[in-house]
Amino acid sequence: MIAQRLPKPDDISSAVERLKGQAVRTPLLEFPVLNARTGGRVLIKPENLQRIGAFKFRGAFNAVSRLDRERWPGGVVACSSGNHAQGVAEAARILGLDAAIVMPNDAPRLKLEGTRAAGAEVLTCDRVKSDRYAIAAELAEERRAAFVPPYDDLHIIAGQGTIGHEILEDAEDLGAEIDMVVAPCGGGGLISGIALWLKHACPTADIYAVEPAGFDDLARSLASGHRERNLSPVGSICDSLLAATPGELTFEINRNALAGALAVADNEVQAAMRFAFESMKLVVEPGGATALAALLSGRLPVADRTVAIVLSGGNVDPVQFAEILGRRTLS
Amino acid sequence: MIAQRLPKPDDISSAVERLKGQAVRTPLLEFPVLNARTGGRVLIKPENLQRIGAFKFRGAFNAVSRLDRERWPGGVVACSSGNHAQGVAEAARILGLDAAIVMPNDAPRLKLEGTRAAGAEVLTCDRVKSDRYAIAAELAEERRAAFVPPYDDLHIIAGQGTIGHEILEDAEDLGAEIDMVVAPCGGGGLISGIALWLKHACPTADIYAVEPAGFDDLARSLASGHRERNLSPVGSICDSLLAATPGELTFEINRNALAGALAVADNEVQAAMRFAFESMKLVVEPGGATALAALLSGRLPVADRTVAIVLSGGNVDPVQFAEILGRRTLS
Repeated sequence: MIAQRLPKPDDISSAVERLKGQAVRTPLLEFPVLNARTGGRVLIKPENLQRIGAFKFRGAFNAVSRLDRERWPGGVVACSSGNHAQGVAEAARILGLDAAIVMPNDAPRLKLEGTRAAGAEVLTCDRVKSDRYAIAAELAEERRAAFVPPYDDLHIIAGQGTIGHEILEDAEDLGAEIDMVVAPCGGGGLISGIALWLKHACPTADIYAVEPAGFDDLARSLASGHRERNLSPVGSICDSLLAATPGELTFEINRNALAGALAVADNEVQAAMRFAFESMKLVVEPGGATALAALLSGRLPVADRTVAIVLSGGNVDPVQFAEILGRRTLS
Repeated sequence: MIAQRLPKPDDISSAVERLKGQAVRTPLLEFPVLNARTGGRVLIKPENLQRIGAFKFRGAFNAVSRLDRERWPGGVVACSSGNHAQGVAEAARILGLDAAIVMPNDAPRLKLEGTRAAGAEVLTCDRVKSDRYAIAAELAEERRAAFVPPYDDLHIIAGQGTIGHEILEDAEDLGAEIDMVVAPCGGGGLISGIALWLKHACPTADIYAVEPAGFDDLARSLASGHRERNLSPVGSICDSLLAATPGELTFEINRNALAGALAVADNEVQAAMRFAFESMKLVVEPGGATALAALLSGRLPVADRTVAIVLSGGNVDPVQFAEILGRRTLS
């Protein structure tokens, strides 16, 4: 993995072609209520409407479809908190490959079920006590299967970068020039792919990553210049954004391309999920709502600017969603 | 009202121009999971993403923006179970007119709040015991305000017909030819507007209306050839589709243009809302989900055909939505 080169814009162009007819071409949505509230022109990229309910299918299909099948007779192995799991499982199903995925046993039910429904074998482990990377690596070796990393991979990053490509293409159709793109950040595959394309095709745009409070490893790494680690592996409702540290490749891109990284608290994420429900009619999972939460918190300089907000996923269990809706304070 | 002529396709073309920059140009979405489940190619028209969270803004803005302001110094008056209320209130706000809306006191909180938030005066009455049409008509006369009917009006129907126009335009971009369009039906403004455009621009397509069980006045009217009434004014969760009888204008269009009308039970509607939540990440209100419910129930001949399904609105209270999510039977 570590010997991989950094992705280039051409790798994203190649991924755009490869994903045609496979990934959903998600729209770019505008909500007058959101423009009125923020004073900017807000364009929403709803990757919760993507195949498997999250952007992760893009990178997974881009990577898995390029594997040399003869070299990997055992198919693919991955480890994931849930969305990469479903992305790899769905890509393997489409391509006719075996898939085995190591997931934390406290992953949302929807993500565990979705991974199994795509035909993958699911092996669960303890989120904190087990090293699911080590388990997956061992499994891959045993089975002569390819390990598909969740973010720190040339083709994974390039696949997620197709989101940046689509944002610019659709913004042009709307007569809009993008000033800023804001996206959720865990290991950094999504934000680095988007940043890579934007810095190539729209270099004046500012790119911001939004992490969960307590998991601001990227913000601290940008400050120190080194890959910092989070202090705890638990303590946020954003189950999809709890990577321990920035990836090597993703950080190398992000340190040069990002305007900054912000952190949002659980209650801000929940408020954003309720706003998406009431005013946008979209179901967003906690980790998928951090960029929207940062926007609604008023901490981004969006007045009179055109800003694209990525909603990265919508795989939230009905029980958790109902509970978050119920916390609404009547105004 | 009754002296109005029937709308023509040109009225829809005119509404398309009038709504530019005012209504949201909602996308046409495709979900691989829905194609796999139904065996057809399903294209979703998500009018829950429309301004005010429902299609009703289209007809309301088209009608209200054409009013002669000098003739109606008191602005506009409407009666509505909630979505037309918000549509008229929002159109009046944009156009700088006063608005007073008569609504049932059991309307969803989100709809009452949305109407007030747009600056309208809301007068509530009992859904069953009061005749909200009569109250609104009297109020309009008192105030020298224009009464904006919820469906039985040339410009209201033409405004809703812009949905048919957009479906065909976006289907062409996707390389799809529409074989069938299915939409929810209350008074019939939405379905008649869509049918009017489709019969003009794509006459081979079959258009189906979907009513709530117990409110199948259109299906019975199509069978008898006369406008039939529903037996009870209550008894369905589809609060937005409880009109007592088809409109005069809407029925005149629908009797000639529709392939048929189906009815769906509350439990089918709830299952469709859960499907939209889990697999499409969209929030749909009960009345907005009847066409999807008919599709998922397997009663539409969609195999190997391209079918557009209209989700007409998403204004459902969080408490009701949470309760419906909680009814999920674990599979």
